[in-house]
This record gives sequence, structure tokens and C-alpha cells, in this order.
Amino acid sequence: MRHLFCAAALCLAATPSLAAADWSRLETAAASLRDKALAGSEAYPLLESLTTEVGPRLAASEAEHRAALWAVAKMKALGFQNVHIEAFPMPQWTRGEERAEVLSPFPQKLAVTALGLSVSTPPEGIEAEIALFKTYDDLLAQPIGALKGKIAVVTQPMVKAQDGAGYGALVRMRVAGPSEAAKRGAVAFLIRSLATDDRRAPHTGVTHYDPKAPKIPAGALSAPDAELLDHMSARGLPLRLKLVLVSRLEERGQSETVVGEIVGRERPDEIVLIGGHLDSWDLGQGAIDDGAGVAVTMAAAKLIAGLPQQPRRTLRVALFGAEEVGETHAPFAKAHAAELDKHIIASECDFGATHVYRIDLPAGAASSPYGRALANVTARLPAALGPGPARDGGADLEDLAGVPLAELAQDGTHYFDLHHTADDTLDKVDPKELDRLTAAWTTFAYLAADSDVDFRAIAKAAEAPKPRR
Amino acid sequence: MRHLFCAAALCLAATPSLAAADWSRLETAAASLRDKALAGSEAYPLLESLTTEVGPRLAASEAEHRAALWAVAKMKALGFQNVHIEAFPMPQWTRGEERAEVLSPFPQKLAVTALGLSVSTPPEGIEAEIALFKTYDDLLAQPIGALKGKIAVVTQPMVKAQDGAGYGALVRMRVAGPSEAAKRGAVAFLIRSLATDDRRAPHTGVTHYDPKAPKIPAGALSAPDAELLDHMSARGLPLRLKLVLVSRLEERGQSETVVGEIVGRERPDEIVLIGGHLDSWDLGQGAIDDGAGVAVTMAAAKLIAGLPQQPRRTLRVALFGAEEVGETHAPFAKAHAAELDKHIIASECDFGATHVYRIDLPAGAASSPYGRALANVTARLPAALGPGPARDGGADLEDLAGVPLAELAQDGTHYFDLHHTADDTLDKVDPKELDRLTAAWTTFAYLAADSDVDFRAIAKAAEAPKPRR
Repeated sequence: MRHLFCAAALCLAATPSLAAADWSRLETAAASLRDKALAGSEAYPLLESLTTEVGPRLAASEAEHRAALWAVAKMKALGFQNVHIEAFPMPQWTRGEERAEVLSPFPQKLAVTALGLSVSTPPEGIEAEIALFKTYDDLLAQPIGALKGKIAVVTQPMVKAQDGAGYGALVRMRVAGPSEAAKRGAVAFLIRSLATDDRRAPHTGVTHYDPKAPKIPAGALSAPDAELLDHMSARGLPLRLKLVLVSRLEERGQSETVVGEIVGRERPDEIVLIGGHLDSWDLGQGAIDDGAGVAVTMAAAKLIAGLPQQPRRTLRVALFGAEEVGETHAPFAKAHAAELDKHIIASECDFGATHVYRIDLPAGAASSPYGRALANVTARLPAALGPGPARDGGADLEDLAGVPLAELAQDGTHYFDLHHTADDTLDKVDPKELDRLTAAWTTFAYLAADSDVDFRAIAKAAEAPKPRR
Repeated sequence: MRHLFCAAALCLAATPSLAAADWSRLETAAASLRDKALAGSEAYPLLESLTTEVGPRLAASEAEHRAALWAVAKMKALGFQNVHIEAFPMPQWTRGEERAEVLSPFPQKLAVTALGLSVSTPPEGIEAEIALFKTYDDLLAQPIGALKGKIAVVTQPMVKAQDGAGYGALVRMRVAGPSEAAKRGAVAFLIRSLATDDRRAPHTGVTHYDPKAPKIPAGALSAPDAELLDHMSARGLPLRLKLVLVSRLEERGQSETVVGEIVGRERPDEIVLIGGHLDSWDLGQGAIDDGAGVAVTMAAAKLIAGLPQQPRRTLRVALFGAEEVGETHAPFAKAHAAELDKHIIASECDFGATHVYRIDLPAGAASSPYGRALANVTARLPAALGPGPARDGGADLEDLAGVPLAELAQDGTHYFDLHHTADDTLDKVDPKELDRLTAAWTTFAYLAADSDVDFRAIAKAAEAPKPRR
């Protein structure tokens, strides 16, 4: 029986309905779309429009709503179908006045910003001595009560890496640090920005409070300011800080995800899902995070819609609200629960505006006809097919249970120079790089939407026990 | 007579009192000092101390006074003699709240800073439509009254150049622009920062009002913000701005220049003058502008003071107050008027923290024994001797009538990325580059202070009519 089962599964993967000649035609069409993207797609004009006409668009803010209206209008103008807004309730966090200064012994102002969802200081701020730690582990090594009455500061720098590994390793400092400091008695918490630049622009980002700890205000210093505190602290004198991080939280708010489709000509109920997130942090224009993902996936769909006939399956573009505060994946999954098994593949574009250097597919797909066609067409970008399986399809897709995911890995060497800062602006985006990115997404999406590739079946076959030798 | 005169002058230049063997010894000593500087001078520790313990030090502010006390203490600790403060009265300008935003049709905040000495807006700011010009000449081409009621904005970018030529070509836009806009009816004036970076950090800098024009508030936008206005303005719709640039001017203030010396062992009344400026703009730490010049010239004098015997002449280090607002050169020249003819040479270090690539001396000096020795020793840095004559010895020396000037030209390719911004911080300084800079200054100053080179006589000989062939 086992042998029989395996043979059937392998057979499924090895003989898809589309013939080799069909795949050859798809590959030719995909190569043509890739070249159109490289010659100049709609991505940069869309990004220019979003950053110029809307700009920053914090989750649940009036600006995010303007961004949603912008997206609806653009999708309709680009010829997308079934364009609609999916609204969901969430609290609205708003940044107020923020500043910090060393009061003594060396008076000097510091560039600071509140972490997203931080509780507010009183309007007049907090004054306290700091307890400075060179690493987050040094702080965690402190006993309960050791930081009583202090502003805890961690100045650990982040490592630069093409794949953003430095961020992954240290992000717990931002997300969990405020509660860990509070458990040890701190009255406020500051980190060196999770960042790889030397700009005087602090990097924000969401934090989450542990319900078992007091909620204390939390912020990030720019790298030069964290280094200044390192230098001051080396003198061995107590450093007294004033910290103003005003913010407010309104429980009743609403965010919106915008969805549009190129409806499939043969299997309209089968969905290839791509997208980016429409919200951004409030400090910059959200150009690389994630205006680029919004613009690129819209531009990819527009190129595919421009073919002589619609693709076999439906290509859906979702522009998520409230990604930055992590609110959107659950309501999105819930809204689409009934059709999750009809999702062929899903992936989100959310790592800046640079080119794709590697594509990871679901298990087994790299060696499928789909994988071979994708590899052939994207080799010219150049992008390589990774061995897979993709670990992650994007933060907004994490609740799509069972949906096959792909990861189009971008060069993120400089991503964390600008990420979550006032410096995330249009001028940082190279239109040619954006078109290279669009070319990869167009190829990836087109080959899935206009074929009959079945990533679930391929993965099942790949994961099945191999016959004994 | 003419022939006789020329012969005498040439004779003076050609046969200095020091013999060739003396110059050889000086050259050896200078090379040793150069190598000590390269191995690690006091410059970086001094700069670290100034930026950490004092930080920003705006002209005539309490912080500038703290910087003066810092300099006195450091000079004494380094063994300088005749350490003293030369105070002079001047108005004190102080920056207040500053912000700008596009109100319509595309609401978005802009990063802005007031130009130094700008008059204040009302506390609630100014609201007006903008008149945007792509070049300063476009604004100048407007007739009187054409900008009535408008906020004039010029978005001309600055060219990047090793010698800062782009700044020289465009600085009139900052200095004279507010009055030119006011003459044409504008209620406020904004420029794209005179800068070569893409940071969201506007660059301040002094402006001067024409007494014949109304005084209007003036500020600078960061490059990304100027480009945003370019993008918005391309839509052809009127752009309405809110601008808050609060500042205040107190007529009765005081700035201070700090002076210290290594007193000459043979000719103590003959002065070799080097220095930097102690004041900085208030936005950053004044690390490259001009903590570097302060630290480097102090470190150079310290190296020279460490020789077995003092140099023949007095080496004077002057750390000027209020350079940024142009207040110090006149009082300094006045205070030293009686000894100007005893100044052998003077030069100020004020172009960042990078190495010297060319040294320009007074006329004729490149081919003198001094010039040859300097060229031999600095060739290893490497720095080349320019043909001279030096055009400029530094902003604080411009009133020292008749004093021979030298220019130690630094690589300024990236200087205007950071100049006058919040980003002018210690972390931007490479200690090795600072030591290379110190090596050049030490060599230049030592050879002048421990020799009998007479730049006035050399220049006179070089400028004398040549005998007819």
C-alpha cells in the first residue's frame, strides 16, 4: 500500500495537466512580461503618487483612510475588478510631543522617538537617572527591583546583513524590552534604534506589553545619541535624563485593507494572492516600508491584466492596513476563511524597494515545471531559485492556515538604514531597482495564475516518505 | 636701481639665515612629529571630550561659555602658556520651536530649521501659499511685488565637490535670499538645504538681512522635503503651507575666543597662528564643524610642545568664538592689531575631519627652503604642495591685514552631507583621518615656528618685477 500511495503522489507531481508545450508558451509570455517590467513599469509612478499625495499613513489614522481611498481609485483606474475595502476595528495610537535631554552632568539634547503603542509619559515628562546596559542580555541579567526608579537604556548595536538577520536577532529587545525593564523596576525604557545607519533619525516600531508587568513609556534613540550616552557613561558619573514621550490611545478605531482582482478566465475561484501593506509608520513617507510593496504588486497585476487574455486563475492584490502594529493578519484570515483552500499560493512584498536575489517556494516546487519556468525567466534579473521551502510569506499572511507561501527575498543590506524613520522617503528609491523588483513579482505571479500548478500536491508528494532503497 | 633692488630682494629669499644643514635637521624633526601624529595624536580624545562633555555650543550661548572653560582647562592641562579668554560683545540668537507642514491639498509634515539670525514667525506661525522656484535665479528674475503674500521656496540642489565649490556657488541663496524674496513681497523664505546628502536633517547657516528690505523669517528644508514640494508642485495645484520658525535675539550677549601659546625660545614675539572655531551650530555636536579644527590644532601644538626644546618662535593656538555668525574676525584683528606685523603666518582649520590633500602657501613660498621641507615631509601623508598663493586662510582670519596666510585643503567630498545639521556628531569622525589631518597641521606649524622663514620677504621677492631678459 505504501508503495502504491507513493507512486500515486509522485505521479501527481510529475505529470501536471499542462503539457510541456504549454509551459514553454507560459515561459515565453512570462519573459515578455519581465522585459516590460524592466523597461519601465507603473511601480515608480504609483509610489511617487502615494508618497506625494498621501505620505505617512499610520494604522487607523485619517491618513491611512486617505491611503485606502487612493488605493481604490488607483486600482479602478488600472482596470482591476472587484475592488473593495475590508474594514476591521482596532485601537488607534497617536504620537505626540517627544524629546529627551541629558540634564546633568553634560547637558545635551537627544534625538528620540516613542515605540509604537508605547504608553505616554506625563506631558511634562519624566526625570530620572539612567541605568545603561551595553547589551540586552545585560539588562535581562538584572534581578527584579534592580532598576527601581531608573530609566533603563540599552545601547546594543544591530548587525548589518543582506537578509536582515541582525534585526531578527535583536527585535525582542524592542518588543519585549519595556516589560522586562518594568519588571526590574524601571520607570521608562530606551533602546538604541534597531538600525544600521548613522543618521540622527530614531527608528520606531511596535512594542508589546506583558500584561503581568507595569506599562512604562518606551522609546528609541538614534545611533549617534546612543553612542553619546555610551561616551558619557564611560565617565562613571550618574547621568540624569529628562524624557517626554507623549502619545494617546483611542480604543475605538478602524483600519482598512484594500483588495482588487484580475479575475481568472478559467478558474476564477482559484486565487493567487500578492500584496503589500498600505499603512506605514508616521515618521517618514512609508516609501520603502511599504509603499514599494504596494506599488510593485499593483504594477505586477497591471502588467498581467494587460495581456491579450486574463490569466486562468484569479490574481488578487491585497493592500493591508495596520501591518505595522500587527492587527491585520487575523481579521484578513477570518474574512477569507471560507476560501483558504482555494488559495493556490500567497506572498507579501515587504522588504524595501531593492531587487529580488532569491525566490523560495513551497516544498518540492523548485524542481516542478513551475519552478523550472520561474528559474528560467528570473535568471536574467538575476534572481536564483532557493531550495525552499519558504519559511515565511509575510507578516500579514501568517494566519492563512494551509495556504502555500512563497518568499521573494530582497537585498536588505541598507533596508534598516531607513526602516521606520523620518528618512523613509521617495528619494531613497531607485526606479530601476523598483522595476527589477516588479519584474520578479510579475513573473512569480503570472506563472502561478496562468497555469495549473498545485503547490499543495507538490508539497505533499515531496513530504511523503520515500520508498526504501 | 631697479636691478639692484631686485637683486637684494632675491638675495633675501635665496639665502635665509638657516643653513641647509639646519633645514635638514628641521625636516627630520618634522618627519618624526608627523609619524607621532599618525601613530595616534591627542586630537580624537580632545574631540571626544568636547562633543561628549559640551556638545552643541551656539555663539554667545551658555554652552559656548562652557566650551571656552573646557578649552582653557584643556590647554592648561596640555602645558600651553599664556592661556586666556578674549571676550567680545555680540547679540545672542536663540532657536525656538520650528515646524512646517503642507496644509493642502496633500497634508504632510516637512522637516525644517530656521537659518541663523532669522527673525521669528509669530508663535502660531504663518499660513500662506507657496511660490516655488527650481533655481535661485528664477526667484531673482521675479519683479518687485510678484511674491506678495507668498512663502517663497527655492529647491535648487547643490553640487558635490571635493573642494566645496558647490557651496561657494550657491551660498548667496542662503545669505541674501531672504531679503531678495522680501523685496519681491514674500512673507517668508525657504530654501532646499545647501547640502549634498539625502538625510531628513535640514542644514542651518547664517543669513544676513539687507537693511533696505523687510525682514522675513527664513529657513531650510531637508533635501527629501524640498523634493517632496517639487513633486507636489508638479501637480499644478496651489500648495498651502504652515510655517513655525520661532527664535529670539538678545542684543546684549558675549562670545569668547580662547588663546594659548607655546612660547618661542629665541623669538617669542614672532607668532605662528593656527586654530579652529569653538562655537558650533546648535543642531548637532559640532564634531566636524569645527570640533575637528579645535582638536587638531590643539593636538598639533601639544606634539610640538613635547619636543626637547620649544620652537624658535611662538606657536599660538586661537579657538574662535562666534565664527558661524561671522562676529569674531573683527574683534580678534582689533585685539591683535599691534602685533600683526609680527605674525609670520596664519591659518585656520575649518573644513571637517578628513585629511589634507593640498597645501597652498603665500606667494613664492612653495619653492623656498620652507616649502621644500614641507613638501618632503607631507608627501608621505600624502599631501601635495599647491602652487599658491593661498586665497584664503579661514573665515576668522580675514581681517588680519598683511598677515601671510596658508590654506591646508581638506577632502570635503562628504563635508556638506553633515555641515550645520543635527548629524554633525562624533561618530562621523574617523580617528585615523583625524590623525592624518593632525600630521599635516603639525608639520606645517612646526617648520614655520622652528625656522626663520619670512613669508613676507619671499612674497615681496616673488612679486617684484623680473629683470628683462
